[in-house]
Amino acid sequence: MKNEEILNQLSYENIDSMFVFKPENIKYISDFYPSSFAYLIINEEPVLYVNSIDKESAENQSTIETRDIARLSEVKDLLNGNIAIEGSLEFNLLKFLTDDINNLKVSHVFEDCRKTKTKEEISKIRKSISIAQDAITQIDFTSTEKYAAASLEFDMMINGSIKPAFDTIVASGTRSSSPHSEASMNRVETPIVVDWGATYDYYCSDMTRTFIETERQEEIWNIVLEAQKAAIDTIAPGVEIFDVDKAARDVISEYGYGEYFIHSTGHGFGLDIHEAPNVSYNAKGVLEKNMVITAEPGIYIPGEFGVRIEDDVLVGKNSEVLTKNLDKKLEFTL
Amino acid sequence: MKNEEILNQLSYENIDSMFVFKPENIKYISDFYPSSFAYLIINEEPVLYVNSIDKESAENQSTIETRDIARLSEVKDLLNGNIAIEGSLEFNLLKFLTDDINNLKVSHVFEDCRKTKTKEEISKIRKSISIAQDAITQIDFTSTEKYAAASLEFDMMINGSIKPAFDTIVASGTRSSSPHSEASMNRVETPIVVDWGATYDYYCSDMTRTFIETERQEEIWNIVLEAQKAAIDTIAPGVEIFDVDKAARDVISEYGYGEYFIHSTGHGFGLDIHEAPNVSYNAKGVLEKNMVITAEPGIYIPGEFGVRIEDDVLVGKNSEVLTKNLDKKLEFTL
Repeated sequence: MKNEEILNQLSYENIDSMFVFKPENIKYISDFYPSSFAYLIINEEPVLYVNSIDKESAENQSTIETRDIARLSEVKDLLNGNIAIEGSLEFNLLKFLTDDINNLKVSHVFEDCRKTKTKEEISKIRKSISIAQDAITQIDFTSTEKYAAASLEFDMMINGSIKPAFDTIVASGTRSSSPHSEASMNRVETPIVVDWGATYDYYCSDMTRTFIETERQEEIWNIVLEAQKAAIDTIAPGVEIFDVDKAARDVISEYGYGEYFIHSTGHGFGLDIHEAPNVSYNAKGVLEKNMVITAEPGIYIPGEFGVRIEDDVLVGKNSEVLTKNLDKKLEFTL
Repeated sequence: MKNEEILNQLSYENIDSMFVFKPENIKYISDFYPSSFAYLIINEEPVLYVNSIDKESAENQSTIETRDIARLSEVKDLLNGNIAIEGSLEFNLLKFLTDDINNLKVSHVFEDCRKTKTKEEISKIRKSISIAQDAITQIDFTSTEKYAAASLEFDMMINGSIKPAFDTIVASGTRSSSPHSEASMNRVETPIVVDWGATYDYYCSDMTRTFIETERQEEIWNIVLEAQKAAIDTIAPGVEIFDVDKAARDVISEYGYGEYFIHSTGHGFGLDIHEAPNVSYNAKGVLEKNMVITAEPGIYIPGEFGVRIEDDVLVGKNSEVLTKNLDKKLEFTL
């Protein structure tokens, strides 16, 4: 059904051939995630081209026709008419696709199809969330930030995660004032921002909890939670996406911390950890049924500390918070 | 010194401006690895542009001037004359760089500079190898392949690895016949192919050991080791790179297993797990002093099993195997 949607959309866009290079898009259409150089060409039907390293796995796992990879110089002969690409490609590779790169069309067919999830995809995301949630109960804060992150990643992996959905963040003490702080070899202090996710059959999960200790930390934590609740309350099909961001931002601004909320309120995720829609102040478009997005406001006070709370929401008539209410108010004494 | 080399090379190639997008290239020139959208523009001097999420870290870590990110529509004004790019970019992004993308030059200046390593880089690679080597002594084979991989990754991380250099491979029993087999939830059987690496300050390591049990496994293992020794013996500055591949391939072919050696003999690595040179049968060019490459022949018998042995070699007048001789002949009974 996903493939039909892609084919219909390409036909609607008057595209005759599409060259697909991004592993996540190959997985989306063939159910095979290549471990090495591979591409997919869509004419009437999609065909997967893999090299010898992936041949055995691709033949077992791909739901579409699989062939031996052609030399790049032969790819041009496999394409015809209006040719489309999507996503990042080597400039030199583009020249193998057509005699005049100005003729290449940029399509967003995968981005568009992937932003709403099928039943099967939602079920994989639920499983990915479940693996990540179970792991947080096992996290070990008795040593370094790195140790805590490693303990979380270990637990996700032995329960079926392929790899972390992104580099696990354990940012504690003043290091938490940077939203993407790398887990360090320093001992864990408070507050502790943990931002983590699993991948189940390549589908991501993404959540953040902040463990707090002092009254000042709790004060900020309460504001962030109020902002997150306000954002989640707006989530429904047809709602302007920027209004979700605005709901969170307004709460934080009312408390006077607007300048310290330095990122967007959320983003879609699925095979990629960041995919459409981006839930930002200038987002275009409205929420659609079966989008899966994060709601993750934060306040980052330079030199002091940061707090972020992040949950995953399935958009629907009754939108569903997919992440369990993980004892959100996590007070913590080391 | 690295930056001077880049600037000189750009001047030699008659390039006035370069747009740098790949995080590893940004790290190479600024010592800062962005966690979010960022780019670097090289005119007379390189300047790093980061968004608010990375601002604090970039200001602390970057060795070059750092500015707030400009809107994409303003990037064009920051570039002038002959403009170069390198690596993968969104086609739509290219259009923000110039009015006619046919005028964009493709440079390989980063690839060229990065293929030989500085003293500092070699020291980081040594540390990355040391972390990975120490971890293999802690690997736990008593449960699933996934559990073994997780135990290895845990140990690397608590000893300072940022993340695995790639998805750790633990491929055992018949699953070892696929070179890139994903660690599964099946219990470990023999032989066990473990292919793993750490990242220390973003510098990779990459090694493979195969743990064997039966006589048949040992027979194949001995051939692979002989092939690897033959390849390593050829490694010296000035040697044609395809001759390194040929040395390994000839040994395996003599024993009649040529068709089962289905990948190249090795590859360079550093900030990326795969970088120049590719040590393949059709490689162009010669080895240079201070390249760091893998030597990793393998034999993969479909339906039976596979064996691979991989070490890391620093090219020099006296080339040095950087990976310790980790009790290579690892016999194993579960």
